[in-house]
Amino acid sequence: MNNKFNFNVREQRNLTMLVDFYELTMGNGYFDKGLKDKIAYFDMFFRRVPDSGGYCIVAGVEQLLEYLNNLKFTDDDIDYLKSKNTFSEEFLQYLRDFKFTCDVWAVPEGNPVFPNEPLVTVRGPVIQAQFIETMILLTVNHQTLIATKANRICRAAGDRPVMEFGSRRAQGYDGAIYGARAAIIGGCSSTACTISDKMFNIPAIGTMAHSWVQLFDTEYESFKSWAELYPDNCVLLIDTYNVIKSGIPNAIKVFDEILKPMGKRPNGIRIDSGDITYLTKHCRQMLDEAGYEDCKIVISNSLDEHIIRDVLEQGACIDSFGVGERLITAKSEPVFGGVYKLVAIENNSEIIPKIKISENDEKITNPGFKKIIRIFDKTSHKALADLIVLNNEKLDESKPLTIFDPVHTWKRKKLKNYYAKELQVQLFKKGKCVYDCPSVLEIKEFSKNEINKLWSEVLRFENPHSYYVDLSENLWALKQSLLHKYTKSYELQD
Amino acid sequence: MNNKFNFNVREQRNLTMLVDFYELTMGNGYFDKGLKDKIAYFDMFFRRVPDSGGYCIVAGVEQLLEYLNNLKFTDDDIDYLKSKNTFSEEFLQYLRDFKFTCDVWAVPEGNPVFPNEPLVTVRGPVIQAQFIETMILLTVNHQTLIATKANRICRAAGDRPVMEFGSRRAQGYDGAIYGARAAIIGGCSSTACTISDKMFNIPAIGTMAHSWVQLFDTEYESFKSWAELYPDNCVLLIDTYNVIKSGIPNAIKVFDEILKPMGKRPNGIRIDSGDITYLTKHCRQMLDEAGYEDCKIVISNSLDEHIIRDVLEQGACIDSFGVGERLITAKSEPVFGGVYKLVAIENNSEIIPKIKISENDEKITNPGFKKIIRIFDKTSHKALADLIVLNNEKLDESKPLTIFDPVHTWKRKKLKNYYAKELQVQLFKKGKCVYDCPSVLEIKEFSKNEINKLWSEVLRFENPHSYYVDLSENLWALKQSLLHKYTKSYELQD
Repeated sequence: MNNKFNFNVREQRNLTMLVDFYELTMGNGYFDKGLKDKIAYFDMFFRRVPDSGGYCIVAGVEQLLEYLNNLKFTDDDIDYLKSKNTFSEEFLQYLRDFKFTCDVWAVPEGNPVFPNEPLVTVRGPVIQAQFIETMILLTVNHQTLIATKANRICRAAGDRPVMEFGSRRAQGYDGAIYGARAAIIGGCSSTACTISDKMFNIPAIGTMAHSWVQLFDTEYESFKSWAELYPDNCVLLIDTYNVIKSGIPNAIKVFDEILKPMGKRPNGIRIDSGDITYLTKHCRQMLDEAGYEDCKIVISNSLDEHIIRDVLEQGACIDSFGVGERLITAKSEPVFGGVYKLVAIENNSEIIPKIKISENDEKITNPGFKKIIRIFDKTSHKALADLIVLNNEKLDESKPLTIFDPVHTWKRKKLKNYYAKELQVQLFKKGKCVYDCPSVLEIKEFSKNEINKLWSEVLRFENPHSYYVDLSENLWALKQSLLHKYTKSYELQD
Repeated sequence: MNNKFNFNVREQRNLTMLVDFYELTMGNGYFDKGLKDKIAYFDMFFRRVPDSGGYCIVAGVEQLLEYLNNLKFTDDDIDYLKSKNTFSEEFLQYLRDFKFTCDVWAVPEGNPVFPNEPLVTVRGPVIQAQFIETMILLTVNHQTLIATKANRICRAAGDRPVMEFGSRRAQGYDGAIYGARAAIIGGCSSTACTISDKMFNIPAIGTMAHSWVQLFDTEYESFKSWAELYPDNCVLLIDTYNVIKSGIPNAIKVFDEILKPMGKRPNGIRIDSGDITYLTKHCRQMLDEAGYEDCKIVISNSLDEHIIRDVLEQGACIDSFGVGERLITAKSEPVFGGVYKLVAIENNSEIIPKIKISENDEKITNPGFKKIIRIFDKTSHKALADLIVLNNEKLDESKPLTIFDPVHTWKRKKLKNYYAKELQVQLFKKGKCVYDCPSVLEIKEFSKNEINKLWSEVLRFENPHSYYVDLSENLWALKQSLLHKYTKSYELQD
């Protein structure tokens, strides 16, 4: 129902100039060399899952779509670029008249994805397809990083809700705003970030800070005032002075004196410091003895998936978690290393695959215009493998499918009784948006379902099973031929 | 000269709703309890320097000022808040008519600062002073984190310029935009982020990506085209295929064939992968032998302060560094833990100091309305110590000053021949902005000078000397008396 509030906030920002300067010097170069309309194909993909996890959750597609829809150089932008004395007048005129005409495909948000899969594929005039590199990477890298981290934390918490509390420690305003969005996609139940609720219709919640308690002469008075004000949703922060000696007795007193006569039950108590296991066990006991078995215990003190698993294993009595800085910055591994690589060009409508060589084997790219196919078992509906194939390849699902490891090619596996699903969807057709983004809460639900289709071995925190991401015979052969060709050209030089 | 481009970009964004929801539930509470105009004092401070460094560089004050200047709830905001069914109609009317009336002080950007020092102090009606918590923390935490990290990296690079290249891996758009700003404050020479140049008049630069090279049939042709286009600023990326066998020979060939006949000298070559020490030594030798002793070597491959120190010690031949993901996310420690705590209230114009107790000694706050005094040696002009004092305290610089460790109080030091400087300046007087922000390049210059006033022992990377941040006698005594008072109140309960 909040959707009516979204429009203003989201339409006003034009991020066209958020671009690495070299995209512009190259753009000027493509223009000058008559190459601007050369058709190029780029893939955005990543090489490894953060925190040695088994999969990532892709996120940020909606913002990518908004960015591409809003691409436009203002007079101000052109004046600024002119002042750099780097660009030709003709190129600046081209930017003034800029019109986005690319095709764009992406894996919809919430999908579990794996290394080397093209999350975004762009086809179009190289001057355009190159220009949008910075924002594609920035947008998808950031939200995928946070959704993936949130998903780890939420899995550790099991059925207990996880609230995103990190705005104050986020890396910049959008780190908070879109970080909260990605956290919900990853599985969080709510956020403290109000503007994200307004923009994305995701539930924002909050109660009190220590300063509320400090402002009153006594902790008891501060609790009393709060209970009078919010009898239907009374959560008290009990660690301003001393949890056991002061906080919990005062809370129980207020529940008894204020809520009980009103016929209301307390919602919860929150603890933000100290030994979680010890304190929650004591609090649970004291609450139960006072007749408040239904009063929830909320914890929020520099948590992450490891601490959550630890304290739950130790028998801590916790009903929900507020997770801040370690989620909103993905502290344990705060960089998502997505890259954007040229994989093909067109010469007279013929697709010419391109490869990026590297002495580091992992950095060699998969050439050509490709798509991803996910193979599911017909009986269990579990995902068996992903196959990266050339875009024009078709899979005959009625026949057995043999997949093989792209490095150790003798490792082969025959799949029967399967069905296949293409992962990418088209976002833009010749520059026109053709995709309707689902709501964030729909994406969250979708994501949960898709993750449930992974075997539990892939979900494991420690040393998860490496999900199969193989290449089709055709793609594998193409890659080998390009590698041999380049090796040969060096041999000739030696 | 670019300042004329800034205005539009910076004025359009109203971040009023970027606020933790609990600031609003508390605001509603202060309003309901008749406490909204109660005068409160809050300090923003941090507890430890990231990466075990000796100091931080404060940044973000200009954005804090813009935020406070733009505070305003739109009709949309109010409609949204109403839909939450949490706030009284009177409180919503108060927000509709919201007018900021606080006093705000801050340490100007670029200053080296230390744990427990109030970087920002707010005095005003508690409902307002509380509301701005989220944005004060978010703004100053983020930019201080990045400026501090950039400063470490730039110190490792010594006189060699460091370029900020991290936009694509930043945590959200503002992570890139304001991260670039903070990186310049910390000492970077330039950024790849175009919009940051436009907004803050900081130099944006860039050359080519691997895709430029890949688009041509041969590396040689791609270099030739570039040199023809940018003969005055020709930097070639030489690692698309093979640096030694292909990249550097092709670059030299193009310098000879294209630039030399035009009477131009090459600007540089860039290497983005591989063994930096080995490759740069080889490239230097080949360039020198070809007569291009002045051609610079630029390196850009997952760098940070440790790798930069290492390769320079190994004799790598590098003229400048492009630093990306490890700077823009402060990867080694991506959270800056600034906090915002109630330190006093006023009762009938009398200041009543407040303290936050914790079983963790470091988390106990310094109570009262305070300021920071930095003590300099009159002869060397080096900074000797900082003193946190009550706001009404005056220092008689003609008399010796005895400072003492606030925990081990027997550790005392007598200072003579010194002068003192107050660090905080006033940003807002009763809600009116009274501070003119310097430009980013001015802040960068100022910061360099202030860091030069620290002893080299404080600048050390490993185990730096802990700079003295002591409390005045009065403040120390006040803190002790509040601690004893609270301890006593628990004893009575036992």
